[in-house]
Amino acid sequence: MSLIVQKYGGSSVADAEKMKNVARRAIAAMGEGNQVVVVVSAMGDTTDDLIDLAHQISSQPDDREMDVLLSTGEIVSSTLLAMAIKSFGQKAISLSGGQAGIQTDGIYSQAHIRAISPARVKSELAEGNIVVVAGFQGVTESMDVTTLGRGGSDTTAVALAVSLGADMCHIYTDVEGVFTADPRIVPEARKILEIDYEEMVELATYGARVMHPRAVEIGQLYKMPILVACSFNNRPGTVIRGGIPMEMRNKARGIAHDLNVAKVTVLAVPDKPGIAAMVFEPLAAANVSVDTIVQNSSVDGKTTDLTFTVSRNDLAKAMSVVEPISKSIGGKGCVSDAKLGKVSIVGTGMQNTPGYAARMFKALYDSGINIELITTSEIRITCIVNETRVADAVRSLHKAFQLDQA
Amino acid sequence: MSLIVQKYGGSSVADAEKMKNVARRAIAAMGEGNQVVVVVSAMGDTTDDLIDLAHQISSQPDDREMDVLLSTGEIVSSTLLAMAIKSFGQKAISLSGGQAGIQTDGIYSQAHIRAISPARVKSELAEGNIVVVAGFQGVTESMDVTTLGRGGSDTTAVALAVSLGADMCHIYTDVEGVFTADPRIVPEARKILEIDYEEMVELATYGARVMHPRAVEIGQLYKMPILVACSFNNRPGTVIRGGIPMEMRNKARGIAHDLNVAKVTVLAVPDKPGIAAMVFEPLAAANVSVDTIVQNSSVDGKTTDLTFTVSRNDLAKAMSVVEPISKSIGGKGCVSDAKLGKVSIVGTGMQNTPGYAARMFKALYDSGINIELITTSEIRITCIVNETRVADAVRSLHKAFQLDQA
Repeated sequence: MSLIVQKYGGSSVADAEKMKNVARRAIAAMGEGNQVVVVVSAMGDTTDDLIDLAHQISSQPDDREMDVLLSTGEIVSSTLLAMAIKSFGQKAISLSGGQAGIQTDGIYSQAHIRAISPARVKSELAEGNIVVVAGFQGVTESMDVTTLGRGGSDTTAVALAVSLGADMCHIYTDVEGVFTADPRIVPEARKILEIDYEEMVELATYGARVMHPRAVEIGQLYKMPILVACSFNNRPGTVIRGGIPMEMRNKARGIAHDLNVAKVTVLAVPDKPGIAAMVFEPLAAANVSVDTIVQNSSVDGKTTDLTFTVSRNDLAKAMSVVEPISKSIGGKGCVSDAKLGKVSIVGTGMQNTPGYAARMFKALYDSGINIELITTSEIRITCIVNETRVADAVRSLHKAFQLDQA
Repeated sequence: MSLIVQKYGGSSVADAEKMKNVARRAIAAMGEGNQVVVVVSAMGDTTDDLIDLAHQISSQPDDREMDVLLSTGEIVSSTLLAMAIKSFGQKAISLSGGQAGIQTDGIYSQAHIRAISPARVKSELAEGNIVVVAGFQGVTESMDVTTLGRGGSDTTAVALAVSLGADMCHIYTDVEGVFTADPRIVPEARKILEIDYEEMVELATYGARVMHPRAVEIGQLYKMPILVACSFNNRPGTVIRGGIPMEMRNKARGIAHDLNVAKVTVLAVPDKPGIAAMVFEPLAAANVSVDTIVQNSSVDGKTTDLTFTVSRNDLAKAMSVVEPISKSIGGKGCVSDAKLGKVSIVGTGMQNTPGYAARMFKALYDSGINIELITTSEIRITCIVNETRVADAVRSLHKAFQLDQA
């Protein structure tokens, strides 16, 4: 008998009717001869509502308490889904992250899974239950509740699938899979039926919101195939797996974009060893996550500009950290721009084939789009542009790389 | 250093401001040199909202899942209160029932506490924390979440106080203590400053809503003094304790009333052994809680009427159980009356003093109130009357027993 782990996001369980729909889907998967574990997120806006509640109490709610508070959202979902499944005559049981054996480190609000002890899940499956697990959470060694941070329920699902030796992990959401670009921006965007883990990690990291890169990385590490599909219909989604033969023709797989980009430039810093550390260590200490870093070699051999990007909500904090540093090292202050976006082309085929970067820059040039920063990985090229030009950039690249053609 | 367990009900933590008020009170108790454990109920109508949600999913929600669902209400409260306390600069930590070591049997929705292992609570207190415990819940041996049924948070508080060897358990609510009668009905009702466990159990059982009798019984069993007071001011409340010297003058302590009463009479049942069991065993099996039972000796030696009371919401179920039984034993069917109420006078002094019952019946007679049923315990006399006369009955008894006089 095969074993499937299904994960349903908050929009898929937002109300009682949707919850019943998910119950029917889980039962159908069982009817097809599978053992079924379902991981659920909190209903609709529950998590935001709980965060609001906490902020009514305290402007800086305690991390540990916040995790316990937020974890209740997924527990509520899991019990309601188990009730719904049972009301259709199928045995089911809900388990919290702790009960499902998900052990984490003690870093509240962004805990990492250390191990999963799936004994309880296995025994409940053996009893004929559909096992509904509250996503996004685990417990420390001392049984304190933690949450896994962004994409937490995806991570729960893939990690559980791995630890249970599942045949596949299904991530159900409100979109039909991974597309060559966001279909709201590019109507011609095509659904990608199969994609390699590596490409999916890059697309997810650089803005494709379908799935969290962290969960894809776990899938990649343990070779767990992942299906991303829509919970509201039965159309085929996207399968994320390894070993997809490299395509010869169209080596760009998809385009990701992200509007949550702000840029900080530290002007005229001395061009000598140790300066970068002086800037980025305090940023890390202030828990500012720095994305792209660009530093050109200096022209005069004395000073250079150091530029980095952060998410927009970290910009104020980043500036408050780097401005005094700039002064202390004799720089000329800092400037920032919060109105930027990222556009990336991703594809494993790109790594051994020259000309992709050139084609990208040409397409943006032809559309009159100015490139602020460029960064690349082996299988990705990212340009940072003004936020007002992001949609144009996505459309022009989709066409230039012929992603509208099968 | 003394140790206090405080319990705050749902109305005391209904919103962020009230939560902060409770935080200040807990900190004040610590400032007076106590270690402080706080037990909280779910905020305001949370429990009802969760029940509604479950009923949107299923007309008969699974018991186990319901318990997990409802337990989240108290967990939310406990985290928010811990945040509030910490925001005022005092160390605090929330613990779920399971984390606080509250072990129960596996009877979902009305679990009983088997044992409390307070090691975690003690170590958190030793760290200088105010420990906030989610009320109303525990875990079974297999770590499944249970709830304790009605009055559950009171029970959590008193049981925790006992297991921790606390000096006192404070039950804070929206009333100022226990009164000689409900002040909304009898404006002259006086606050009772000290009351014996036994009297409080009877008052609570027969309608005084201040505290659940179950929690008082635990207090009685382990001699834990309990203060009932208002969370919105600092006026003295009522202390429930043992060893209060029997008063010589006014031996009626207080009057309780309850409007949630329905009566079933099984007509003309054969007056022979075993009939009562034939009626009440199936009622118990159907989970109908029977309160008062009255059966007169039969006049003709052949048949008698068997009358019992249940809460109103159990009436339909009770009738559906006893009607077929009445037929099968050759009775003359069943009649019911849902519009009844109970009025009780309670006082330990009554047990060795004649004349209390007579005075009660006389007072009701003088007010033209017809008595449907009478039951007594050693320290209580209860009359069941028409619901429209309950308030009159309370007022007339309060006067007849001079409860308005100190």
